[in-house]
Amino acid sequence: MFMIAIETALAHVRQTARPLPAEKVPLADALGRRLAEDIASDCDVPPHDKALVDGYAVRSADFQHRAAREEPAAVELAVIEEVTAGAVPTVPLTSGHATRIMTGAPLPPNADAVVMVEDTSWQAEDGVRLGVVRFRAGLNVQPDMNLMRRATSIRRGQIVLHAGSMVRPAEIGLLAEVGVSQVRVGGHPRVAVLSTGNELVEMGLTPGSGQIRNSNGPMFLAWAKRMGAATLDLGIVRDHRDAIQGRVKEGLAADILLISGGVSAGVLDLVPHVLQQVGVREIFHKVQLRPGRPLWFGIHDEGAKPTLVFGLPGNPVGGMVCCELFVAAALKRLMGGDAAEAPVIMASLASAYHQRGNRPTYHPAKLRMEGSTTIVETVAWLGSSDLRALAEADCWAIFPPGERHFQPGETIGCRRFMAR
Amino acid sequence: MFMIAIETALAHVRQTARPLPAEKVPLADALGRRLAEDIASDCDVPPHDKALVDGYAVRSADFQHRAAREEPAAVELAVIEEVTAGAVPTVPLTSGHATRIMTGAPLPPNADAVVMVEDTSWQAEDGVRLGVVRFRAGLNVQPDMNLMRRATSIRRGQIVLHAGSMVRPAEIGLLAEVGVSQVRVGGHPRVAVLSTGNELVEMGLTPGSGQIRNSNGPMFLAWAKRMGAATLDLGIVRDHRDAIQGRVKEGLAADILLISGGVSAGVLDLVPHVLQQVGVREIFHKVQLRPGRPLWFGIHDEGAKPTLVFGLPGNPVGGMVCCELFVAAALKRLMGGDAAEAPVIMASLASAYHQRGNRPTYHPAKLRMEGSTTIVETVAWLGSSDLRALAEADCWAIFPPGERHFQPGETIGCRRFMAR
Repeated sequence: MFMIAIETALAHVRQTARPLPAEKVPLADALGRRLAEDIASDCDVPPHDKALVDGYAVRSADFQHRAAREEPAAVELAVIEEVTAGAVPTVPLTSGHATRIMTGAPLPPNADAVVMVEDTSWQAEDGVRLGVVRFRAGLNVQPDMNLMRRATSIRRGQIVLHAGSMVRPAEIGLLAEVGVSQVRVGGHPRVAVLSTGNELVEMGLTPGSGQIRNSNGPMFLAWAKRMGAATLDLGIVRDHRDAIQGRVKEGLAADILLISGGVSAGVLDLVPHVLQQVGVREIFHKVQLRPGRPLWFGIHDEGAKPTLVFGLPGNPVGGMVCCELFVAAALKRLMGGDAAEAPVIMASLASAYHQRGNRPTYHPAKLRMEGSTTIVETVAWLGSSDLRALAEADCWAIFPPGERHFQPGETIGCRRFMAR
Repeated sequence: MFMIAIETALAHVRQTARPLPAEKVPLADALGRRLAEDIASDCDVPPHDKALVDGYAVRSADFQHRAAREEPAAVELAVIEEVTAGAVPTVPLTSGHATRIMTGAPLPPNADAVVMVEDTSWQAEDGVRLGVVRFRAGLNVQPDMNLMRRATSIRRGQIVLHAGSMVRPAEIGLLAEVGVSQVRVGGHPRVAVLSTGNELVEMGLTPGSGQIRNSNGPMFLAWAKRMGAATLDLGIVRDHRDAIQGRVKEGLAADILLISGGVSAGVLDLVPHVLQQVGVREIFHKVQLRPGRPLWFGIHDEGAKPTLVFGLPGNPVGGMVCCELFVAAALKRLMGGDAAEAPVIMASLASAYHQRGNRPTYHPAKLRMEGSTTIVETVAWLGSSDLRALAEADCWAIFPPGERHFQPGETIGCRRFMAR
């Protein structure tokens, strides 16, 4: 049976998937999407020389003179102004004077250091708002102490984020800071999910003899949602050419169509044929992968916009491996990411494992830390239909093809579940 | 200055936060929430002895007799029925017969093995739908080959998921499989976000002299959304007692109120006082943590339902550390999780680092794999106000208190960003 390697299949998916048109959205809606433009700051950050602590803006020379004369007495300075955050100093500092200042507030001209309020004591004069502040004896005040100069963090015009970056909460904060309240981001893909099979009933029903509930439909819809896509639920369709064809045509309105089942070698595995009939061009069928071998991939590019079509194995774990490896890569490309592979984590195997067969195995497993070692423990797993194992796991333990006995403590590669 | 340790602060947060009332929701809406009940299966999985491959259901004895007599010739069996998935076999197998069967379909009575279609050739008789199938010569057919017995994966009544579990896509699939179309999950917390400070302007505006844009509000709203909460945007309020008090009262409608700024030692740091005025009971103020020291935490439990109130440092990185450490723990408890700490990843330091001061430092950093080693690289960071650094990072590198020089290659603890 001809199968292509995972890497070859991934290369096909990446080459076929094209970024959706970018769109401009309000900043809050950019969360979880990818930037479609480089972002330059419209301002210096900080916008002024600012205090990093609550205290007093001073001229460090006022302290060094005294230190040079080896005076043990505490420095006292007259307080000429109070500057809170949001206010602006109006009086330049001159020798013998200090300005009361709050964290983040702009320094007055000539100030070159800030002393924390904890290192001072306040000499209030009755009825006088501004008095004299006494500094702790022997205090070492150096230039630039407790302050940040204008534009130290970001200069106006500087690129602070690059196209392709994922917008996480930190990026939302940074974009708000540099004046981006609307931003161009990659498109928001829509994923349609269709489950095929005469044996399937809706999850709310009690299966009759020979029937099972449709678990794949709800699971792949949830997976797509978790990956940041919009979804279209096409429900269940029977193993009947015309019925499948009608529902597939509806699915071609989406950017990605996931069809669960009907792609194996059974007499009712009609999906590949129907897809060709409606003009979906096959790119590959069957991947050297366990579980997940029956995967079918093609593209419909006759209409106004292309639709990528994945025929997923009907067994849920096989379908999930294909989603995490291949559909995720397609989604990332559509959304404007570079579709690099998710990183492989190297981990120490907790228990012995016997691998055999000509396909790499993606075995559901759990990661944990023991001291500074990453441990991966495979979960008890009865094969491609065993969803219970998937719910116990948080990663795939990857075993290369060929027969081999792995000892506890051997290092293997793992991939964390992308959608969680 | 009195500060409590991170662990003590976390213990307070966990003790104070109580799970919200559970609610029953349609399965699709349970994604990202936590189960509030143990889940028992209403069915056996698989519901019948089933074929794991497309092929022929057989009696293995029909093959072993021949093997025992050392006949090299291929076994031939008469095909008496075809069972596709969703159909039910009607004819029990007897010696000399086979049933054509598809993956997932129920086995006929007396069948104890399935042979893959790839190991057979079909001897069709003209005009006859059921004919004779010939098996590959020397084929080794053992009992239980390529089949799964009823209830091997899950027995009816078996608990398949426990209360407190996070509902991910795999759990959605498993719940659908075992007949759960409505499920009780933990409550959906609402997080209100209020930014205080005379220096703040909305992100769409150009700051005047001494002003900066409000980056914390949008960032903490995005963070809460990413953590699975509903959000309430309370905007910006000036450093004025009555104004803060009014807006705080609005925020007490939420389950968690995050107030950014106003909790330090500045003359306009009015938040703790205002909170006490409106009946928010202080639980702690100031944590031994860099950045994030000014954190204030309390509870309002006079109304119909309690509200947890976090006074976050006004500097964005300090605020973010507090969200990731403390607000995340509170959210997890409210949602019905057990609030265990997020795992610390041990990683090898890429570059030297000089740590000093009496607080543990949470330094923005990036994780990567080099072979089987996890490497952490601290990013250039100018301190608590430096959001640019946060956008470059994906974890916190944790350095314990005390002055110490860390060499490249030393192992330190890291925490991945929770919201990404």
